[in-house]
Amino acid sequence: MIESFFFPKTIAVIGATANPKKFGNAVTSNILKNKNLKSEVFLITPTNGEILGNPCYKSLCDVPKDIDLAIILVPAKIVEKVVDDCIEKKVKGIIIVTAGFGEIDEAGKKVEEKIAQKCKDAGIRVIGPNCVGIQNVDIGLNASFIQPPPPGNISMISQSGSFGCGVFYAMEKEGIGCSKFANLGNMCDVSFKEILQFYRDDPNSEIICIYMETVSDGRGFFNELKNITPHKPVVVLKGGVTGTGMKAASSHTGSVATNFEILKASIKQTGGILCENVDDFITVLKSYSSLPLPKGERVAVLTNSGGSSVLFSDEAEKYNIKFASFSENLIEKIKPNLISIVKYVNPLDMIAGAGENEYYKVTKAMLEDPEIDAVVPCCVIPPFLEMSPIEHYRGIIRAWNETGRKKPIMPLMFLGDNFKDLHALAKEENAPVFYTPHEAAFALKAGIDRMKRFNSKHLD
Amino acid sequence: MIESFFFPKTIAVIGATANPKKFGNAVTSNILKNKNLKSEVFLITPTNGEILGNPCYKSLCDVPKDIDLAIILVPAKIVEKVVDDCIEKKVKGIIIVTAGFGEIDEAGKKVEEKIAQKCKDAGIRVIGPNCVGIQNVDIGLNASFIQPPPPGNISMISQSGSFGCGVFYAMEKEGIGCSKFANLGNMCDVSFKEILQFYRDDPNSEIICIYMETVSDGRGFFNELKNITPHKPVVVLKGGVTGTGMKAASSHTGSVATNFEILKASIKQTGGILCENVDDFITVLKSYSSLPLPKGERVAVLTNSGGSSVLFSDEAEKYNIKFASFSENLIEKIKPNLISIVKYVNPLDMIAGAGENEYYKVTKAMLEDPEIDAVVPCCVIPPFLEMSPIEHYRGIIRAWNETGRKKPIMPLMFLGDNFKDLHALAKEENAPVFYTPHEAAFALKAGIDRMKRFNSKHLD
Repeated sequence: MIESFFFPKTIAVIGATANPKKFGNAVTSNILKNKNLKSEVFLITPTNGEILGNPCYKSLCDVPKDIDLAIILVPAKIVEKVVDDCIEKKVKGIIIVTAGFGEIDEAGKKVEEKIAQKCKDAGIRVIGPNCVGIQNVDIGLNASFIQPPPPGNISMISQSGSFGCGVFYAMEKEGIGCSKFANLGNMCDVSFKEILQFYRDDPNSEIICIYMETVSDGRGFFNELKNITPHKPVVVLKGGVTGTGMKAASSHTGSVATNFEILKASIKQTGGILCENVDDFITVLKSYSSLPLPKGERVAVLTNSGGSSVLFSDEAEKYNIKFASFSENLIEKIKPNLISIVKYVNPLDMIAGAGENEYYKVTKAMLEDPEIDAVVPCCVIPPFLEMSPIEHYRGIIRAWNETGRKKPIMPLMFLGDNFKDLHALAKEENAPVFYTPHEAAFALKAGIDRMKRFNSKHLD
Repeated sequence: MIESFFFPKTIAVIGATANPKKFGNAVTSNILKNKNLKSEVFLITPTNGEILGNPCYKSLCDVPKDIDLAIILVPAKIVEKVVDDCIEKKVKGIIIVTAGFGEIDEAGKKVEEKIAQKCKDAGIRVIGPNCVGIQNVDIGLNASFIQPPPPGNISMISQSGSFGCGVFYAMEKEGIGCSKFANLGNMCDVSFKEILQFYRDDPNSEIICIYMETVSDGRGFFNELKNITPHKPVVVLKGGVTGTGMKAASSHTGSVATNFEILKASIKQTGGILCENVDDFITVLKSYSSLPLPKGERVAVLTNSGGSSVLFSDEAEKYNIKFASFSENLIEKIKPNLISIVKYVNPLDMIAGAGENEYYKVTKAMLEDPEIDAVVPCCVIPPFLEMSPIEHYRGIIRAWNETGRKKPIMPLMFLGDNFKDLHALAKEENAPVFYTPHEAAFALKAGIDRMKRFNSKHLD
């Protein structure tokens, strides 16, 4: 049944409007914007006429076809009437975007429950009310009032719509993207758990991420995580983990306090990963989305800047990451590329003059070495010797490409976030960049944790 | 004496070269690049001739004027001879950029010590060897082989040259900048402590920051911090805080292990701030550089997005930041600007439709409120209702400007790092932006910590 929400053949937008100052317009135009969307869209508005060049129907009942998905944008006070139309029309699923129900007061809660019961009796599933909507980026369906994320392999469920919006901005920047997105609002019917089940079985949802402020059906939720995690990583961020945050969350989504320590232990037990903050949340998504898992936990570090690799080592040790010992074989292989004062210890400091060729040759040798499981090339972009700001990264990615991207690399371009060409090259290559030692170390830790939990057979 | 390094009237560049593939060229051209530099520059090169249109001298002794600062770029094996020339010429200070001394082997260490002793006997101060050099951004002096930072009020001393280089990139991005910079290399003579003393008395060095991998003269260093911190904030990052990091640091700067816990306690005692990682280091610099200290610890939070303020609240509670109670007076003042469903609690969720006007009015009312010491306007940039991506920030900064920038604000544009117009507006306004809840909370914590320590008289 959840299928009807993400893969509707026919969609009715009820309360469609051409007024750009209304939320309903954002949803209407987001749906209409994509000319490649295969779903047939019907606009319903009492004033009839045309919206953005599309004909409109006065009532849902006038639509000449069966409707898979009805999206309700009308004011709260007439939502119930529109839901009755949907029941009569035998739609399969309803998204109620409209706010002003259980999140407002007891009276709103009553109406919400009544609507939910009616739909349940009629066998219709409901998402919302008070929600941002859903997206299926794979088919170009944006049934929400926020922007579409870049396409990708991550599917998200977020208890806050604006959180999703912010993460999409971050995805744009980081070169990762979404397959599906859902914000469920007051969850009068469809729950987190059901969306998770859908993502579990959806081949394009390779990584699943969750932002939540409360857990309603704890047992069901954790059981579902346990089902998913051996097959797909599940990354969780919880808003309202402190007293102050919970107070804020309660005013936001009306959620009641959840004990964070219990939550943390429970999620760990399921094999999911609970992040401490949104920075780490994005980093883990980047790691799982763009890197293979390591087959072991031995990392090799190379650098043109002692400082950056010292700071990376500090972060790496926090997570007990193991530093590989360089074999004689590896040293023999890389020595001809490096200047005489280089010391063959891990991290390998190639000194400031190292450029594209040194990064390419050494990264490649490390990736090919059977005693190394992951490579962290650190680099401070040199402003001297006429080097190109992107040449080191280019060398690193070339090495990664030529070794079939079989091992994870975390290119740490130390504080190089301001180099637009670097972002552009990373996007073009569909490869990750990290800008701080913490980010690179945390991305590696996420990979090692998952490998240890689920792929221990790969360990020697 | 340190004055001669930062404010030299005459400079001799010994080993100047026009070959862009040599480090010496980076230093030479960095010095010559700035046509406004008042210092007179003399280039010394054995081949004579011209470099970048400037005449050259064959030997330092041929220069017809007294020299304040000699910068040595010649190969290691002839550095001692050049130092002899400097002694004969009675220069005031020498920077030996050339590497290949104590950091390499025992023989190198011996030569380094011999040079240091000679200069000491002659009353000449020496920075280096094996260093990136120094900069005085205020007068446009770049006596180093890295790029100049943007101008600003921060003075830095870094044990890693490339660390400085990376931080300059970050400063460019964050709209903050430097007054002075020093990388001292092997420190055969001039020490951290002396540079700190110089920064202490330098009016343009309003904030002092330090990257170090080892402390040589611990007692002197901590005493100096204690002298400075009541007048200027001192922000410290230590590389090599873990066993692995220390091993890496030892290979990098030859430093010996320092007990991190002792260091942490010692720096706290001096009133300085020791950061856990480079992300926090940049955040604290941003906070001190661009924001006034709060006069109390009561924060008010406003938002258009529940999720972002929930996450901010979580971070704020980690640092025991106090949330202000809204007075009747404040509520009366802001109510007319907000829609009816808004709940008057802190954080104040103005709901997704709030735009420039709401942000301007509410931020201003909060800044004017005597029961509020700092304001955190959170915002997820809305992709709907035809809002401009920068209007919320514009409203916030207008409110801050009109209240004389007397209280700190931490505008949290949640994950909005990818909006170029936002960066541009922040730079134009010389105002900070924060992109993650952690960053905004940590910036506020840094202000509160310093206020509590040194301005307790302001507390009610």
